[in-house]
Amino acid sequence: MRNSVKVFAPATVANVVCGFDVLGFAVNAPGDEVIMRMTGKPGVQLIKITGDEGRLPLDPDKNTVSASVQHYLEHIGRTDVGVEIELHKKMPIGSGLGSSSASTVAGLFAINTLMDNLLSNKELIPFAMKGEELACGYGHADNVAPALMGGFVLIRSYEPLDVISLPFPEDMYAAIVYPEVDVPTKDARQMIRSKILLKNAVTQWGNVAGLVSGLFMKDYDLIGRSMVDVLVEPTRSILIPDFYKMRALALDQGAVGFGISGSGPSVFALTKNEETARVITLSLQNQLKGLNINSLGFVSPVNKMGPVVLD
Amino acid sequence: MRNSVKVFAPATVANVVCGFDVLGFAVNAPGDEVIMRMTGKPGVQLIKITGDEGRLPLDPDKNTVSASVQHYLEHIGRTDVGVEIELHKKMPIGSGLGSSSASTVAGLFAINTLMDNLLSNKELIPFAMKGEELACGYGHADNVAPALMGGFVLIRSYEPLDVISLPFPEDMYAAIVYPEVDVPTKDARQMIRSKILLKNAVTQWGNVAGLVSGLFMKDYDLIGRSMVDVLVEPTRSILIPDFYKMRALALDQGAVGFGISGSGPSVFALTKNEETARVITLSLQNQLKGLNINSLGFVSPVNKMGPVVLD
Repeated sequence: MRNSVKVFAPATVANVVCGFDVLGFAVNAPGDEVIMRMTGKPGVQLIKITGDEGRLPLDPDKNTVSASVQHYLEHIGRTDVGVEIELHKKMPIGSGLGSSSASTVAGLFAINTLMDNLLSNKELIPFAMKGEELACGYGHADNVAPALMGGFVLIRSYEPLDVISLPFPEDMYAAIVYPEVDVPTKDARQMIRSKILLKNAVTQWGNVAGLVSGLFMKDYDLIGRSMVDVLVEPTRSILIPDFYKMRALALDQGAVGFGISGSGPSVFALTKNEETARVITLSLQNQLKGLNINSLGFVSPVNKMGPVVLD
Repeated sequence: MRNSVKVFAPATVANVVCGFDVLGFAVNAPGDEVIMRMTGKPGVQLIKITGDEGRLPLDPDKNTVSASVQHYLEHIGRTDVGVEIELHKKMPIGSGLGSSSASTVAGLFAINTLMDNLLSNKELIPFAMKGEELACGYGHADNVAPALMGGFVLIRSYEPLDVISLPFPEDMYAAIVYPEVDVPTKDARQMIRSKILLKNAVTQWGNVAGLVSGLFMKDYDLIGRSMVDVLVEPTRSILIPDFYKMRALALDQGAVGFGISGSGPSVFALTKNEETARVITLSLQNQLKGLNINSLGFVSPVNKMGPVVLD
């Protein structure tokens, strides 16, 4: 039995354009790291956070990592266990890349590793969703499920939770650009209307079904045709500088599809190879530079592993 | 080159519970037959309709079969061609089983056969949609696309039309029961709200994505879990006698899933084999008999061929 562990958990792209609240995929970079050590006395301590510029709570009840680890220990009836946690943020907060999810998943994977993998990764999802509720005010699964399971994930149903791993083309890459403008998830959600036209919903679920079919068929063309969002993108894109120009740039340069990652402001393109993803990332960052907006760029294959033990 | 042809085209189950306006599948029975003969003088004549109890128009401009054949001939620039048509209805009208679609598809497949298969079955879809517009006031594709292509079909998009054949478990059967009560498609559509809750739409597209995944994975359990409709069924089921009792009966007897076929009043169950489909069909018909409602029952594998030439 281990006494300490260092874990990496991946960033995730939720929604994947048409699949609002039901689709997401994980990437190899960026992501967060958690170091966890057994202390020998009961209780979950959060001893250090780096890379957050002081933005995350150190109170163990308010931080999603420690709170969800505590929740896990209560669930398995091991409140006798004590751990101390270091959270090393290696990705931007409030970026739309599942930042809170990456931290929470790293913490849960760490404690589950220390508990000899008592639960499967899939069984950790509800604990991670509790963490999302704390971080975003809304217990969604479209970041934590792909962060835990890797790859593309469908959340078919929330009640009961029903999560399905989808296949995807082996060589698929993601180009991700985070423009350094602030779009809190809560506000981004509030911009969305609670009532929509049935006509638009039909368009949307035709595209969701098309995207899922494209993933199973490994048909890039169908995946691309299906990456259309008539409901959420028209509103959320307002918050993202030069969104439609970036979209045109990405598609011109060979992107399979392009859209907002989660609630933004990060945007992503899916591509057929690494080179195209690199070209698109640079080109989008250049576009933002023209607006005097700093950005971070990430190029990654679709993540296949979910969280991993580093040490 | 043929001078005459006899064609069968299959009935279809549109919507498939969660896939309103985007999913449908074809069955081997029931279906309609069209006999078509070249006449040697220009013009499309409708010389006989049987099995319709006098309900369908004999005016060639108003009947969907002759009107869509005329439309096809204009499109291919062959208004010099003349044909006479016999339509033999072998299935109930206004049943929710794609009755107009089966007739239209049989007619189009017949004329295309006489024209040496100038177009593919997929290319015939827009002509058949025009026929649906004439019959139902709404040019939908979720009956005509599976009737033409066989199997399960996804209509990802209407503009532009994008139709995808989905795989399905080889041994899948459908149990279909038509209660002899009248539910015109136009009225059934008018019962549906034009605005819906985003929350319900998310539930629906989670299920659509789940059903499509289940078909690709040949996972009956996932197919069944996904056959849930929170939007249309609650309203349309009001028009169908003992709908929820029939649903419970079907599921108790081993149905994978159960729901309304198209706009009703026919209901259908998907099953894992022929025997279960037979048992369910009888049991549902028995339930309706208890209400003094006559019904027709059909047991069929999912159709793999689309329309076929009989003679």
